[in-house]
Amino acid sequence: MAKNITSPEKDFSRWYLDVIREAELSDSAPVRGCMVIRPYGFSIWELMKDDLDRRFKETGHSNAYFPLLIPESFMKKEAEHVEGFSPELAIVTHAGGRKLEEPLVVRPTSETIINHMFSKWINSYRDLPMLLNQWANVVRWELRPRPFLRTTEFLWQEGHTAHATEEDAREETMRMLKVYSDFMHDIAAIPVIPGRKTEKEKFAGSVNTYTIESMMSNGWALQGGTSHYLGTNFAKAFDTLYLDSNNERQLVHQTSWGVTTRLVGAVIMVHGDEHGLKLPPKLAPVQTVIVPIARKDDEKVAVLEAARKIAGEMKKLGIRVKVDDREGMSPGFKFNYWEVRGVPLRLEIGPRDLAEGHVMAGPRNKPGREGKFTIPMDGIAESVKKILAAIQDEMLASAIEFRNSRTYDVETYDEFKKLLPDQPGFYRVWWDGNGEDETRIQEETKATVRCIPLEQRPGTGTCFLTGRETSTTAIIARAY
Amino acid sequence: MAKNITSPEKDFSRWYLDVIREAELSDSAPVRGCMVIRPYGFSIWELMKDDLDRRFKETGHSNAYFPLLIPESFMKKEAEHVEGFSPELAIVTHAGGRKLEEPLVVRPTSETIINHMFSKWINSYRDLPMLLNQWANVVRWELRPRPFLRTTEFLWQEGHTAHATEEDAREETMRMLKVYSDFMHDIAAIPVIPGRKTEKEKFAGSVNTYTIESMMSNGWALQGGTSHYLGTNFAKAFDTLYLDSNNERQLVHQTSWGVTTRLVGAVIMVHGDEHGLKLPPKLAPVQTVIVPIARKDDEKVAVLEAARKIAGEMKKLGIRVKVDDREGMSPGFKFNYWEVRGVPLRLEIGPRDLAEGHVMAGPRNKPGREGKFTIPMDGIAESVKKILAAIQDEMLASAIEFRNSRTYDVETYDEFKKLLPDQPGFYRVWWDGNGEDETRIQEETKATVRCIPLEQRPGTGTCFLTGRETSTTAIIARAY
Repeated sequence: MAKNITSPEKDFSRWYLDVIREAELSDSAPVRGCMVIRPYGFSIWELMKDDLDRRFKETGHSNAYFPLLIPESFMKKEAEHVEGFSPELAIVTHAGGRKLEEPLVVRPTSETIINHMFSKWINSYRDLPMLLNQWANVVRWELRPRPFLRTTEFLWQEGHTAHATEEDAREETMRMLKVYSDFMHDIAAIPVIPGRKTEKEKFAGSVNTYTIESMMSNGWALQGGTSHYLGTNFAKAFDTLYLDSNNERQLVHQTSWGVTTRLVGAVIMVHGDEHGLKLPPKLAPVQTVIVPIARKDDEKVAVLEAARKIAGEMKKLGIRVKVDDREGMSPGFKFNYWEVRGVPLRLEIGPRDLAEGHVMAGPRNKPGREGKFTIPMDGIAESVKKILAAIQDEMLASAIEFRNSRTYDVETYDEFKKLLPDQPGFYRVWWDGNGEDETRIQEETKATVRCIPLEQRPGTGTCFLTGRETSTTAIIARAY
Repeated sequence: MAKNITSPEKDFSRWYLDVIREAELSDSAPVRGCMVIRPYGFSIWELMKDDLDRRFKETGHSNAYFPLLIPESFMKKEAEHVEGFSPELAIVTHAGGRKLEEPLVVRPTSETIINHMFSKWINSYRDLPMLLNQWANVVRWELRPRPFLRTTEFLWQEGHTAHATEEDAREETMRMLKVYSDFMHDIAAIPVIPGRKTEKEKFAGSVNTYTIESMMSNGWALQGGTSHYLGTNFAKAFDTLYLDSNNERQLVHQTSWGVTTRLVGAVIMVHGDEHGLKLPPKLAPVQTVIVPIARKDDEKVAVLEAARKIAGEMKKLGIRVKVDDREGMSPGFKFNYWEVRGVPLRLEIGPRDLAEGHVMAGPRNKPGREGKFTIPMDGIAESVKKILAAIQDEMLASAIEFRNSRTYDVETYDEFKKLLPDQPGFYRVWWDGNGEDETRIQEETKATVRCIPLEQRPGTGTCFLTGRETSTTAIIARAY
């Protein structure tokens, strides 16, 4: 176990904070609930951003930028929206040395301001679909902050689209949920359960909210991203209308969808272990670190030269590689330094390795002596590329296996209440409850209905709480 | 002249707003002084960002993210800083449903919060230099807003670095000024004059501010980016100290540097003309547009097929190309559409072009019939690549030529006052004035001392205002 890192089995919460501190991912800011994203943490977010941005553009979206400050009156135009967000708002009352006539809200999300602009920009069916996205900061006052997972200010992207028909908008809602699922699966090596949120848990102002839910390594759930079908709710509030091909005015149908910096928290909690962070190669700012090991000066020169040569070869193949040539630090110190930071593959080169024409490899996902193996110098860049791909696959497989092993089918609420405390995980149940039932479950067990999975169990069964016959299954779990 | 665009000679200010509207670069927001950056305008900013970000990383900087909200007391720690920024601040007084104990400032810049963090992160000389950058939004309450040039909220990057010595920090200050100069020259095709700001014009809290000044096509100056040597001013205010190799506590020496979305305004005003926007190929979201021209259905198929084929070849070479295959719009409409949006190269393909094995090319920087020429189909992607490179060079050459033709040497203030109204441009003068002299010039002529160019005229001369002997020259101009 790494120094300064609490065992995750002992105290998962403290383990999480320890990993963030030791890997220098973030730091707390002077304003309560805010965080500073440190360079190493930010570079993980940058890799996420680059990949997601490419996916958004491939599906026809353009980036734009809408203002941070929103007139308070805008927030009030959509009734559910203002009710949902009011308690979390930060308000600018003074600016330019005087009191403002109308207070301004620091955006908690941008549906209102974007609809205000859409109503100017959208005139006819020829302007549709309008497919926009923005990368931005938002502020939601947070009483129980937790780095990356819940912060007063966070970074995110918010997609906002307008369509001529409900069908088109619903198709878009599901398309973006799929983009998120694919990203999580292929890039973050995190399996997800796509599903629909209950009425109680949906976004304030939406008709339906869809979510992807993942399991953290303590068995809790984390909502990784949401995609909302907004119907015509905001269009009605902001008069976002278009002329159809018969020259009749129609309300647009809308979607919005977002993922946030909490995804960094998900990566920490799905993959991390007692040694610290463990990054899937596709999200690793440093995919391979080379540690030259030599005591004598003449050996140092040869070893360092070899390290730099193979690093050069790897860079040519697009591998993010770093030679740790820092002076005055022991190999052991360096091993730990990169292990805590979750670098997927460590290569060690000493004089004997050089002589024998190989390097020693230590994959992060198999720590300790047992995981080590040698790689021939000959064709090493290609070999490393394959090893990184294998590590990515192994990490996904292991996350799937873990989730499956912690997914339980229960028939009754009593059974659920008995199992949950000692077996946190995903509980698959037949479900026919309402908002009040959800509140009861939450009050009694702290668990929530995470989603109604898109993939439903065939047939019907008895609701685990109400006893009513139902064809619907739900996932229930403790969640962040 | 394009429809809806005022002649720049007639009314440059209105021309600027017309181009922004017609090219769909930005729109005004409901909050005074704020703007919405529309997708086309934002994609220009994205190209700028990508290039600059690469340059920052190549010079050893990492991105991070610091909070939007800063305790009001932080702003007051550095005396000049608070004096400079106080009139422009937006203040959050309420959040989470109640009045805050301490008001929060929406960041106008991040020196204070970053120094607060630096003082935690920097312990010994081994932690130096610390080289960070962030891409962020900032708010400075703006009374005379102008899209891209002066907006209450704007997007920018702010580099913040800490060094062990003044020498290192000064070297960094000049390194980043050079990065900005290179970017402007090589990517934006805009020549700059790098120089030092006077005491009156420097950044509030800095020891020295360096700037790059460019000439817009109405002869006015625009500050394109600034790089500050902060000395130990913020380090003193925030106790940002390090242990040197003799184990003695020392103040760090710091820099900060930034460019903003106003660079989009610079590109509009340097290159644009009576037909609209004119983009240098390296900043053009669409570098080449292909307009298929055919009336009969069978011709349409063949022409569109050919257009798509050559577009495919161009994409392989990394050219950002678009086939305008929209139905129900005339070629003339499409020509105008892309001309207003400043696409550097338009290709037209009709049945006769196809038969003759060429396309018709219309470079944006040589509008009208005279500029047109044909390109053989054979090897067209390579040809277009060369043509785009040539357009980039021509646009830079033309901007340099324009600036040189509007740069004047004057010996006396009377001469300056007489010439300036009819000949707006850069006035090179011998300069030995102080802040009061600058105020006088500004009050009497609205011109300001733009910078003390790094490249100085050799020898000495007589200050054009005070008559004192001096070895310093300055550039004086009207400015945005």
